Amino acid sequence: MRIGVDLLGSDSSPELLLEAVEELDVVAELVTFGPDRFEEITTDDHPLLALRRKRDASIPSAMRALRDGDIDAFVSLGNTGALVASAAFTLPMLPGVDRPGLLTTLPTLSGSLAVLDVGANISLKPRQYLQFARLGAAYQQCTADIRHPRVGLLNIGTERIKGTRGIRDAHELLHSSDLSFVGNVEGRDAFTGDIDVLVTDGFSGNIFLKTAEGISMFILNHLREAFGDAVTPQVEEVLGDLNRHFNYAEYPGALVAGVDGVVVKCHGFSSKQAIQNGIRGAIRLVETNLIDRIKSALSPSM
Amino acid sequence: MRIGVDLLGSDSSPELLLEAVEELDVVAELVTFGPDRFEEITTDDHPLLALRRKRDASIPSAMRALRDGDIDAFVSLGNTGALVASAAFTLPMLPGVDRPGLLTTLPTLSGSLAVLDVGANISLKPRQYLQFARLGAAYQQCTADIRHPRVGLLNIGTERIKGTRGIRDAHELLHSSDLSFVGNVEGRDAFTGDIDVLVTDGFSGNIFLKTAEGISMFILNHLREAFGDAVTPQVEEVLGDLNRHFNYAEYPGALVAGVDGVVVKCHGFSSKQAIQNGIRGAIRLVETNLIDRIKSALSPSM
Repeated sequence: MRIGVDLLGSDSSPELLLEAVEELDVVAELVTFGPDRFEEITTDDHPLLALRRKRDASIPSAMRALRDGDIDAFVSLGNTGALVASAAFTLPMLPGVDRPGLLTTLPTLSGSLAVLDVGANISLKPRQYLQFARLGAAYQQCTADIRHPRVGLLNIGTERIKGTRGIRDAHELLHSSDLSFVGNVEGRDAFTGDIDVLVTDGFSGNIFLKTAEGISMFILNHLREAFGDAVTPQVEEVLGDLNRHFNYAEYPGALVAGVDGVVVKCHGFSSKQAIQNGIRGAIRLVETNLIDRIKSALSPSM
Repeated sequence: MRIGVDLLGSDSSPELLLEAVEELDVVAELVTFGPDRFEEITTDDHPLLALRRKRDASIPSAMRALRDGDIDAFVSLGNTGALVASAAFTLPMLPGVDRPGLLTTLPTLSGSLAVLDVGANISLKPRQYLQFARLGAAYQQCTADIRHPRVGLLNIGTERIKGTRGIRDAHELLHSSDLSFVGNVEGRDAFTGDIDVLVTDGFSGNIFLKTAEGISMFILNHLREAFGDAVTPQVEEVLGDLNRHFNYAEYPGALVAGVDGVVVKCHGFSSKQAIQNGIRGAIRLVETNLIDRIKSALSPSM
């Protein structure tokens, strides 16, 4: 297995990221895309302009390598918009999917929640909510062994009439689909474990994700400060566990979902740890044959 | 001082809410709007239709009493849409404000954050973001004694080009205003204490607020479970403090901001506690002469 790793386009230096890659002891061969051979698309670059002007940057080059089977997955800390657009231009789309979405998972009281889109598309057509619901459900079937994943639609109230016209139309489509659709879900009910997939547009989804991160970091900091030096072994254990559960900076990042290939956008907090977690996550997705399983999960119903 | 209290339109019975009102020992005279004399607008009612058909329901009746000076503030657990619309129809708007927004405050690492709109308007025109920024800044000047409140725009990235067209236009307007505008703010940076006002449309703001609530409830539950029976006095103290800080169910609720009158929408979790907190909050706002101070804060710059 060969995993492509982007050393460019993040806040961290290519040297630091290379160090992170070299520290890792994993089953896969890691193929780096660094400054020696590739141009850089920065976070400030406009995604589409950058892809047109920098055809040999690390992102589009790696995407072609993924398409051609030279690597089995691609992991990047770089420009999210460029990563998603390049995947959409270069890789085949999965059956019945118009555009890729960013999928990430969050812990809940009883398991994990797949959320998409968390930032690829500022707005969605109603049919795209349905497509993302199918993708999220297929992802949970494959990675969490949930036979009938329960799908919720992120909204500002549980009543059917809530939200914009587009969201109400999406509600109708989801309601008449073959998915286990539980209806509208508010942010505060997303973490109870009552749903497995949360569908949303990339703007609301990004707000949802980053607010969850912000509050959990805030509470963790507050707790550490409140306990101060007087941390007993029991308190230490609870805090450590809490940190593993809720420190979203330690999560493997987001999958560019809907394309025929494993493309992982790492989380940008602590870049060294982020890229290591992203690489481990990508290896797991390749090992468990995620894309083929999603394809067959999508096929009968499309 | 006379505070109007709505006993109708929530999940709790009028009897329970009346009990909550009677338990309170406050300086104000509490005037209840109950089932003996008023119709009910339910949470399932369509706000505008309900206001047209139930002219003598508790919400529009109390709003007229507020306009006529028979009460000094109105507190309700009822239908948010009807409450906002009734306020907009009945009360004068504050200078330079088109439509009311829902304003709530959240704790941050160093103080409090005023967030608006958290649910009154699904979308906003660019000029309305500026109006809400002014309202939020005036609120923080009055309630938190912050001379130059720092204003952030909720967005999915800090770069100016991020977000929808409407949000980019709002960014320009805020940038060229006389406010202390710090630019785009992501959900995860809202709680650091670097801003005093967060401006957003009612859809994104509602997702922001409810996600913050959901995550904090989730973490509090997780902590209580993790410590189990082995809670030392020190742990008990830290958890109690955390609960006071982050249990948003205990917050006084949201202000219908932008109208000439104190209208408070209570938080709907624990209704008895919610309405008591809402009443205490309304009394404070009347005592500190909030509306007049907001008016004078708005006037020089409009």
